[in-house]
Amino acid sequence: MPELTYLNGKIFEAGETRISTNDRGFIFGDGIYEVVRSYNGKLFGLEEHLRRLQQSADAIDLKLPHTLEEFQELVETLNRKSELLETLVYIQVTRGTEPRNHLFSLDLPPNVFITIRALPDIPGEIYTKGVSAVTVHDGRWNMCHVKSISLLANVLAKHEARKQGAYEAIFVRENGVVTEASSSNVFMVSGGILHTHPADNRILNGITRQFILKLCDELNIPTEVRPYSKDELRRADEVFCTNSVHEVTPVVTVDGMTIGSGRPGPITNQLMRAYRQLVKSVISNQ
Amino acid sequence: MPELTYLNGKIFEAGETRISTNDRGFIFGDGIYEVVRSYNGKLFGLEEHLRRLQQSADAIDLKLPHTLEEFQELVETLNRKSELLETLVYIQVTRGTEPRNHLFSLDLPPNVFITIRALPDIPGEIYTKGVSAVTVHDGRWNMCHVKSISLLANVLAKHEARKQGAYEAIFVRENGVVTEASSSNVFMVSGGILHTHPADNRILNGITRQFILKLCDELNIPTEVRPYSKDELRRADEVFCTNSVHEVTPVVTVDGMTIGSGRPGPITNQLMRAYRQLVKSVISNQ
Repeated sequence: MPELTYLNGKIFEAGETRISTNDRGFIFGDGIYEVVRSYNGKLFGLEEHLRRLQQSADAIDLKLPHTLEEFQELVETLNRKSELLETLVYIQVTRGTEPRNHLFSLDLPPNVFITIRALPDIPGEIYTKGVSAVTVHDGRWNMCHVKSISLLANVLAKHEARKQGAYEAIFVRENGVVTEASSSNVFMVSGGILHTHPADNRILNGITRQFILKLCDELNIPTEVRPYSKDELRRADEVFCTNSVHEVTPVVTVDGMTIGSGRPGPITNQLMRAYRQLVKSVISNQ
Repeated sequence: MPELTYLNGKIFEAGETRISTNDRGFIFGDGIYEVVRSYNGKLFGLEEHLRRLQQSADAIDLKLPHTLEEFQELVETLNRKSELLETLVYIQVTRGTEPRNHLFSLDLPPNVFITIRALPDIPGEIYTKGVSAVTVHDGRWNMCHVKSISLLANVLAKHEARKQGAYEAIFVRENGVVTEASSSNVFMVSGGILHTHPADNRILNGITRQFILKLCDELNIPTEVRPYSKDELRRADEVFCTNSVHEVTPVVTVDGMTIGSGRPGPITNQLMRAYRQLVKSVISNQ
């Protein structure tokens, strides 16, 4: 059983799962999601991801139909059932199903949709050689702390990166401040200090981002959590992105300009290793 | 046959239509839409709506799978088939179906979804007595000229209006400028001049909005298309909203403060009548 899908209590082991066209996710982008990675059959950071799912739900007044404990058991059961060791788990909760109307019924039961997929191939080169990024204008809404499925701005940003031959798009606000990337958080090293944007309404407070900041404390890597500019980013000694699927990904060019030596830097490599070590130790203790 | 649904060439006359959970509308809010109203079996402004669908498609690099002529014939056929005289036609095109990835395949065939529904009951009171509105912070993205289905911000605005006991939510940007409402354009009359926000990236350039501006020309009602502030809105002599379903809807309170006399004003009533007359004459000539 290579991959499976769960929708509102039913498990689909093959073929295409279908949802009502009256689902508010399909009609309004009215839903939230999480992505979790499993290693050797064990889910890393699941509790943290589910706590954030709750925060997203609260922020949009969506009442989750299960407790976080129930979600945890459900996701763990599904992941086991897939029999896959390295998976990408996608959890989406939409507001529910009813005829189109901006105003939703207050007692509408949400739709819970989960997929367990084999982790896609990630080319090792992105870690050893690093990737390219371009900056794009961050004209997204002011609730980027909510992991919502209304993601067209992010989709267009990634598409723009591709058009420019780059791997990732880094958002820069009108005031010149770097926020995050289209599907990852952004860090830069400058003067030996690791910088990243504060976890306010302008970024999604990544679970990997949070682990990286904790690791910096343990490793005595100085950090400054503050808004920084596109100019600072381009002049940085090192840049990297983080998300739960791709972990720590070095960025070696921004807008065609070389970052540092043009290769993954020492702090990036140190954090890449430390994060993998952390995953290993957490997983082996589960 | 009371209502019907069309999906990628198939017509569903009863029951629930379903779409793949890999549809990018469901996963990313990656799609666009239009809403058209029919009167006495005839669609009003269909060509205008389809031209805007094309503009939205172009703005997000989505290649429509039909020409506008084909769309027009399809929608007209479906509307006739419904045998309903007063309908609300919903047209949605999503990027297509493929496993979740921000980057979409460039040759992905889009999904075309259309519903023909009986026009919902609209209480006559909203026209004779007017409605209440509240202002909400406009923190939406900077591509509001695209009629995209990534609509969570609009859903939350309407929900906020309901919480405050109001009918509609009017967006006000950080700089104090009134843009539009959660599912309509906003106009105000001040000093005998009708004001509305320019059709830039901060609003959806409503088809009804465009007809109203043309009617003002014909009726010698002076207009000023410029950004105006929340303070100006609250002090206005008249306020109204427009969209294709509810036409011209008078707003008689904003944030609990009475607008003008607290009843629909003379210019609002004049435009409400003129718009209905326009619809009547266009429809009877079809």
